[in-house]
Amino acid sequence: MTTPAPFYLDCDTGIDDALALAYLLASPHADVRGIGSVSGNVSAAVGARNTLDLLQLAGHAHIPVALGSHDPLAGSFQGGAPHVHGTNGIGEVSLTTAAAALAPETAPEMLVRLAHEHPGTLKVLAIGPLTNIAEALRLDPELPQLVDEITIMGGAALAPGNITRVAEANIANDPEAAAVVLSADWKITLVPLDVTMANVLEESHRQELLASTEAVPLALGEMLGYYFRFYEGIYGRACSAMHDPLAAALAVGAVSAAVAPVVRVEVDTSSGPGRGQTICELRGLYMDYPEQPGARCRVVLSLTDDFAPHLVETLLSFSAESTTAELGLAATVA
Amino acid sequence: MTTPAPFYLDCDTGIDDALALAYLLASPHADVRGIGSVSGNVSAAVGARNTLDLLQLAGHAHIPVALGSHDPLAGSFQGGAPHVHGTNGIGEVSLTTAAAALAPETAPEMLVRLAHEHPGTLKVLAIGPLTNIAEALRLDPELPQLVDEITIMGGAALAPGNITRVAEANIANDPEAAAVVLSADWKITLVPLDVTMANVLEESHRQELLASTEAVPLALGEMLGYYFRFYEGIYGRACSAMHDPLAAALAVGAVSAAVAPVVRVEVDTSSGPGRGQTICELRGLYMDYPEQPGARCRVVLSLTDDFAPHLVETLLSFSAESTTAELGLAATVA
Repeated sequence: MTTPAPFYLDCDTGIDDALALAYLLASPHADVRGIGSVSGNVSAAVGARNTLDLLQLAGHAHIPVALGSHDPLAGSFQGGAPHVHGTNGIGEVSLTTAAAALAPETAPEMLVRLAHEHPGTLKVLAIGPLTNIAEALRLDPELPQLVDEITIMGGAALAPGNITRVAEANIANDPEAAAVVLSADWKITLVPLDVTMANVLEESHRQELLASTEAVPLALGEMLGYYFRFYEGIYGRACSAMHDPLAAALAVGAVSAAVAPVVRVEVDTSSGPGRGQTICELRGLYMDYPEQPGARCRVVLSLTDDFAPHLVETLLSFSAESTTAELGLAATVA
Repeated sequence: MTTPAPFYLDCDTGIDDALALAYLLASPHADVRGIGSVSGNVSAAVGARNTLDLLQLAGHAHIPVALGSHDPLAGSFQGGAPHVHGTNGIGEVSLTTAAAALAPETAPEMLVRLAHEHPGTLKVLAIGPLTNIAEALRLDPELPQLVDEITIMGGAALAPGNITRVAEANIANDPEAAAVVLSADWKITLVPLDVTMANVLEESHRQELLASTEAVPLALGEMLGYYFRFYEGIYGRACSAMHDPLAAALAVGAVSAAVAPVVRVEVDTSSGPGRGQTICELRGLYMDYPEQPGARCRVVLSLTDDFAPHLVETLLSFSAESTTAELGLAATVA
């Protein structure tokens, strides 16, 4: 048994954020020390609310949640993606309101504090727009030397985008922040749509979660009903991509990349039609990606194994101290 | 036997342009009525020179060649790609200088004339930057209604670019022209790097050409020696992509596309890092590309069959009226 690594999670909870959070809490490889909220799928405030409520449901109300940036570095928050995640961000599932309050620090402050408390070992998992991470880099330029590794769900390397033809939502919601984070001198793993869209959670997997007697997998199964209806318009069947939980599993090292070249990545911060695109240097494709001097971003393009069974197994291993009945889970999906 | 279709070829000859030209001349489906030259791989003037010389070598000196634009719509010609095609554009192979002079019209004028002479039947094959085609659209806005179809070698849909990380050379050498051509109301087939890089001509194919006793396949085999050395840095072995001849074969209908969705395409004409990218609406990928209202550009992403054998067979079928000895082919590869 290795010691679980200390994690800072930055999220915009969000249905797949909820899956990623539950996955991290269930994983024996992660010790979540703090969570920051950022506007993305929902506003930073709603995301923080959902995170607090999920933590209580999961029996982890002791993990501090800090409010992060409402607006991106340039411009303002555009209202999120209620058609994907529901108006409350978690597929119209109602959770008991957590007793815990927000942490007395901002999300960027929390990240900087945790990096100093766990120098060289803190892992950062960023599954929303990168506003908080960019702000933390401004607060403490030494951050990259303190953090062990940052894993980012975001971007589209060779796959089509989702929020535009070439841009993925997390990056496109704050391209300026993404440019700062992806050009900082730290070890980055980027988990783009190329791999998150290719690894799908099916209705049979959702039914496995719904068959649980534990509150957390049951709530996630309910949320996924909403998420699946959005993705039916993308895949033509009830299923979903697994953006954020896949990034979580890669961050803890529980799944392996098959193709993941370390390449130079630039974010398009122009006002052109490519705005928000993660422009990856992938011209080495035809020679299995020769080494690129100065490159530091590992871009995960495919996995060695199917991810869904591992995700479901991990979520079903979740054993909270509380049960559904005790916490009064009222799962009403619109 | 169907009547061969009248063709206008627009090119920047170039080694793979030479292959495409020879392929068209050998094809029973094409009747090349005129050729325009544009700056790209080489200057428009050098490309016209190469085209005239190749036509004479092929015994087709009667086909008129018109000089086209030296500079793109915005900016100026940057000098071409001598590292790919050689300083003379045809891999340092020396051809006998043709007796024929240039046509007494510009390339855009030739295209407009041919479209009026063959209303509804003229096929356009554009394998260089799209400057001449855009100029022709300015000369005669009715051009799209007169032309049967335009096939364009250019762009990168989901594959990496070649001249930049996301842009292909023909498009990136004149993005403004490409934007005009791709937004005009005609039937377009785009043949991007996705399919041209995936279909490779091997050294064994080149040896087949070199074993010919005909001047044209022999000269092409010599030129390919130069081209292969460039592509060895891309593929890790002596071989090459088949950009232009593949576009020619698709234009004449001799090869079939396996995946070729008709989608909306926008050219990035910004000054950002995405400049010159062909931004294709490919988000329908996960549902086999549902129909897109208003889309008119067929983007060829894969073929049903391996292209190289067909290309070699067609080039070897070439039987010019003259032989190597008669034309004094001096194939000296640097």
